[in-house]
Amino acid sequence: MKIAVSRKEHFNAAHRLYNPQWTFEKNEAVFGKCNNPNYHGHNYELIVTVVGEPDMETGYVYDMKLLSDLIKENILKHFDHKNLNLDTSYFKTLNPTAENIAVVIWQILRQLIDNRYELKVKLYETERNIVEYPA
Amino acid sequence: MKIAVSRKEHFNAAHRLYNPQWTFEKNEAVFGKCNNPNYHGHNYELIVTVVGEPDMETGYVYDMKLLSDLIKENILKHFDHKNLNLDTSYFKTLNPTAENIAVVIWQILRQLIDNRYELKVKLYETERNIVEYPA
Amino acid sequence: MKIAVSRKEHFNAAHRLYNPQWTFEKNEAVFGKCNNPNYHGHNYELIVTVVGEPDMETGYVYDMKLLSDLIKENILKHFDHKNLNLDTSYFKTLNPTAENIAVVIWQILRQLIDNRYELKVKLYETERNIVEYPA
Amino acid sequence: MKIAVSRKEHFNAAHRLYNPQWTFEKNEAVFGKCNNPNYHGHNYELIVTVVGEPDMETGYVYDMKLLSDLIKENILKHFDHKNLNLDTSYFKTLNPTAENIAVVIWQILRQLIDNRYELKVKLYETERNIVEYPA
Amino acid sequence: MKIAVSRKEHFNAAHRLYNPQWTFEKNEAVFGKCNNPNYHGHNYELIVTVVGEPDMETGYVYDMKLLSDLIKENILKHFDHKNLNLDTSYFKTLNPTAENIAVVIWQILRQLIDNRYELKVKLYETERNIVEYPA
Amino acid sequence: MKIAVSRKEHFNAAHRLYNPQWTFEKNEAVFGKCNNPNYHGHNYELIVTVVGEPDMETGYVYDMKLLSDLIKENILKHFDHKNLNLDTSYFKTLNPTAENIAVVIWQILRQLIDNRYELKVKLYETERNIVEYPA
Repeated sequence: MKIAVSRKEHFNAAHRLYNPQWTFEKNEAVFGKCNNPNYHGHNYELIVTVVGEPDMETGYVYDMKLLSDLIKENILKHFDHKNLNLDTSYFKTLNPTAENIAVVIWQILRQLIDNRYELKVKLYETERNIVEYPA
Repeated sequence: MKIAVSRKEHFNAAHRLYNPQWTFEKNEAVFGKCNNPNYHGHNYELIVTVVGEPDMETGYVYDMKLLSDLIKENILKHFDHKNLNLDTSYFKTLNPTAENIAVVIWQILRQLIDNRYELKVKLYETERNIVEYPA
Repeated sequence: MKIAVSRKEHFNAAHRLYNPQWTFEKNEAVFGKCNNPNYHGHNYELIVTVVGEPDMETGYVYDMKLLSDLIKENILKHFDHKNLNLDTSYFKTLNPTAENIAVVIWQILRQLIDNRYELKVKLYETERNIVEYPA
Repeated sequence: MKIAVSRKEHFNAAHRLYNPQWTFEKNEAVFGKCNNPNYHGHNYELIVTVVGEPDMETGYVYDMKLLSDLIKENILKHFDHKNLNLDTSYFKTLNPTAENIAVVIWQILRQLIDNRYELKVKLYETERNIVEYPA
Repeated sequence: MKIAVSRKEHFNAAHRLYNPQWTFEKNEAVFGKCNNPNYHGHNYELIVTVVGEPDMETGYVYDMKLLSDLIKENILKHFDHKNLNLDTSYFKTLNPTAENIAVVIWQILRQLIDNRYELKVKLYETERNIVEYPA
Repeated sequence: MKIAVSRKEHFNAAHRLYNPQWTFEKNEAVFGKCNNPNYHGHNYELIVTVVGEPDMETGYVYDMKLLSDLIKENILKHFDHKNLNLDTSYFKTLNPTAENIAVVIWQILRQLIDNRYELKVKLYETERNIVEYPA
């Protein structure tokens, strides 16, 4: 009797997509306007899903207030109102594509949520660009 | 060639989260403001998904009008503009968490929808708190 | 050069619509299922708008962080996860229709926001039922 | 390390649901107002999901700009501002239910996206009627 | 003490934009793909606003259930799942632009709602194309 | 017979809020995390409204396709995927608050839209922070 519970949070961040081992021209060709050297930004919408069995005494699979606090303390505090390339340790060499941001968020939270729960991350970079990890 | 068809409906209800076998203090510690003795409420958004093969003559997996009527007659009639704890038979002893509400809705509908269809329930308690059953 | 700045917040509350001076039958006839004696509830979405001139040094008409804090401290603390009829002083005798809730919120905030700013309140009781005060 | 990337697009189209081998009366009974002989229409919201491994050099699973262009060129150009029954080759004999539209879109895109990627289509006919293929 | 109350409804319809006194070429130049002779369609979102003083006994400016019924009976019954050009009397000679649809809806409802209430209509043709009458 | 027609567009940009004539400490005190020296960013949703009389021959107040093209050419081309402080001429000395961005957009478009039309700009910095000019 597995149930999925999800909590939606958001953060506003700047980023630039590029591969430092490529020429500017190649980065332009591949990443287009996302390669703007002065950065651009997004309102990221983040949905974190935890799958497990409900607790008989509470009726909760996972307290969504705790899940929200966990996301705020470990993700939003580091990513919200930040430049993902410059202000975080995660994207110094890793390109902050929506794919990579989702994987990094999953890796951070995976260490904090008991392994008896399955964990999934869904990230809206815009209303039209969406990634999920694991697929 | 399995296709999923989903119908979204909504209901507005009051509820209180608590375990009657616990002290008020323990309920406060676990359920916080959701334990308010005079209840609070939500606009629940409900998405019911039916998975099956499309009918060759109609092109329908399941007539969404029929699915909507089924939800209205068997769920909304009992839950909409009600106090889930006091006005329904389902949550007299079961805590009306989003998890439990989703499971109850699934159990009601599962008896009404032919077993050759897979059935899933997704419930938004708020825009930010979401559950799915089965996961 | 008047600019309007708006902040959106939300609260979840239970309420019942009825006129205590009427019979139950008349209340049923007028308020229908909103007259459920055990209450029902909503996720209220609240948009508070402040109109004024931008400050030359900050470029702000009104700091939206301050506006958010003002709403949280003076509205959400009293209304969120509450029964509007039973848990607040405002709706002991006043019927908590969306209209009256919007007016009460406006009256509370009007005392806290300098009169050189125009003030407006928009309240979504559901996605489909909306009130604005003043019109 | 499979990641899903999704792109949301939309198109506005007219359609009529009916089975030409049935009488008008039977079509009315089954398809109701969707059988209106003069057609009706929808703003279809389309989410196309591609699942694969991220490229080490770009951090992309699939360039969402390319995915968007692919959808525009191969789906929207044929479906947007069209009558699905009359203006497209796909629904001359196939009933343009949401189910069938989703399958047709999947079949078109499946030929254009490398088979190492899994492909899924989600279609909102309205905010309340949703189909996904494959389920 | 004027308050605005609004009710949101929707209808799905087909239409074609063109001026029958113009050549096909001129219609193409002006209306582009909206001139498709076989029609296209939309999910129209309609918000009807009534402005007035709240009734002291009910706390209502206008019963939103009544407003919803009025819209369903007088607008949706004629427009929903219809071809606006062919199936309604209103757009036989009047071009069914979003502007004209909003004005027609306002004219129909204006005769049904007491003149002591101000009346406004807002129509979303798509999420991105919006009209309001009167401005 | 004035009608308002609105077109919604969006752009993704980075910005930093600060007053260069103030100390870093004062900027921190006033602008908080919005003062991050490495910038942060948003998905700005922009609604441009044009008010006027409908043309008798077209039924349009203003062709929304033309309005969309005007916004894309004159606003999005300069603001989308840019750093508002560094990449645009408008915010070299003007603080890119939502208020100031809305006024700048209005000023740019006002020169391009005939004065017989009233012009309004509404800007969502986030789903919860909204400005309108003129109020």
